[in-house]
Amino acid sequence: MEPSAHRNIKLVVAYDGAAYHGWQRQADGIDTVQLRFEQAASRVMGHPLNVHGAGRTDAGVHAEGQVANFRTTNMAIPLEGIRRAINSRLPKDIAVRSAVEVGDDFHASLSATGKTYRYRIHVSPARPVMHYRQVCTYHRPLDVEAMHQAGQKLVGTHDFRAFTSSAETRQDTVRTIYRCEAAQLGAEVHITVRGSGFLYNMVRIIAGTLIEIGRGRWQADQIDRALAGLDRRQAGPTAPPEGLCMLCVHYDAVSLYR
Amino acid sequence: MEPSAHRNIKLVVAYDGAAYHGWQRQADGIDTVQLRFEQAASRVMGHPLNVHGAGRTDAGVHAEGQVANFRTTNMAIPLEGIRRAINSRLPKDIAVRSAVEVGDDFHASLSATGKTYRYRIHVSPARPVMHYRQVCTYHRPLDVEAMHQAGQKLVGTHDFRAFTSSAETRQDTVRTIYRCEAAQLGAEVHITVRGSGFLYNMVRIIAGTLIEIGRGRWQADQIDRALAGLDRRQAGPTAPPEGLCMLCVHYDAVSLYR
Repeated sequence: MEPSAHRNIKLVVAYDGAAYHGWQRQADGIDTVQLRFEQAASRVMGHPLNVHGAGRTDAGVHAEGQVANFRTTNMAIPLEGIRRAINSRLPKDIAVRSAVEVGDDFHASLSATGKTYRYRIHVSPARPVMHYRQVCTYHRPLDVEAMHQAGQKLVGTHDFRAFTSSAETRQDTVRTIYRCEAAQLGAEVHITVRGSGFLYNMVRIIAGTLIEIGRGRWQADQIDRALAGLDRRQAGPTAPPEGLCMLCVHYDAVSLYR
Repeated sequence: MEPSAHRNIKLVVAYDGAAYHGWQRQADGIDTVQLRFEQAASRVMGHPLNVHGAGRTDAGVHAEGQVANFRTTNMAIPLEGIRRAINSRLPKDIAVRSAVEVGDDFHASLSATGKTYRYRIHVSPARPVMHYRQVCTYHRPLDVEAMHQAGQKLVGTHDFRAFTSSAETRQDTVRTIYRCEAAQLGAEVHITVRGSGFLYNMVRIIAGTLIEIGRGRWQADQIDRALAGLDRRQAGPTAPPEGLCMLCVHYDAVSLYR
């Protein structure tokens, strides 16, 4: 028997996570972004399907460039039609940015070679009434240069056991951080982290640690202690979810070939 | 009998109007921004009080610089303490930007000499998932230069009867527009209008009219027809409330003296 014709569709996805219990589908009645996608895409393609995401963002965490893929036997609808039709069945706080056809072995999560996250801290005493869902607020000044310098100690390949929660189930806690930058943008401090992959809560704990350094409670050498000691208590608190956004997912070009 | 000592406090106020039935206090159980302010300010000052706003923004309309004032016999709390304490009793989508003491005859609405509004139109096909509450979306390109040129026909003193709703009860529909600008900012078109005062729905009808011109359905001379004919049907539709924001309220400096 011939394998039936099908397409593997890669989506770039944006959402405001404030209203959802994270990306990952959960028990019946729990509203998640993946659930909304599977409902919309199944309706559009005309058959039940699973939508695989590159990463499981937590409740309240946002995405500008989450990546997802699904397989469909529907060969009729053109890609731009898929994008528009799925968008028309999604709520206003979720959108498909693009839909492309990719090779059969592409998998949004397994094919990913890295991810970039951004953490936004609103540091002005003027409350962010229009975008409070997208930032963490901190009312006192932060030493952004100290945060940036300390962040350079995270760059490289390290065991990040101190920078994950006890809920992390993976045994291998070694990851590579390619880039970690803290910068002031108007009333906000943005922490941008690119890495090979991230442990559970890792970016939020990095943000919480850099905030402790920025407010002067810790020096940069606290990062050395946390990395060397593999001790969660040596890293900072887990910064709240609303400041976090998955900016993009990285792939080797070859994994995207049809 | 001596008049009792009191202070007249002017507040600059910002809010995301998406969750409220406008500024103006209504029947019991209707959530409005004024109600939230009166509850918060009464608690802070320790006595019942009325908070007067410069303008009655509609349901869903936002403010960066609404102005309000209230009179209090509480002479004890310093101004910065008033600002902080009221903020601590307001929800995250409402904030006091500043609190200053003003002359006894200052009234947020009656003393105002003008207001500036901004209308935001999101024109990219990429949906604004993070800030859809703050923009009106229009999916096709707009000719911003044509909108701007047409807007210049609104500048000056005119009878704006064609640019208000039948719900407007004021007899005098003559107003002065000092400035009307349309400009592209990234994926958005911003219409900024400064005037001596505005009739009910006036800025939203101006925005709706300029959108009809920007999409090519009308030419600029449609503005002449609407102004000359005093005919609501010659102006464009009322653009949706979520794109509108009260940017600031203008006063003569003298009215602010203590």
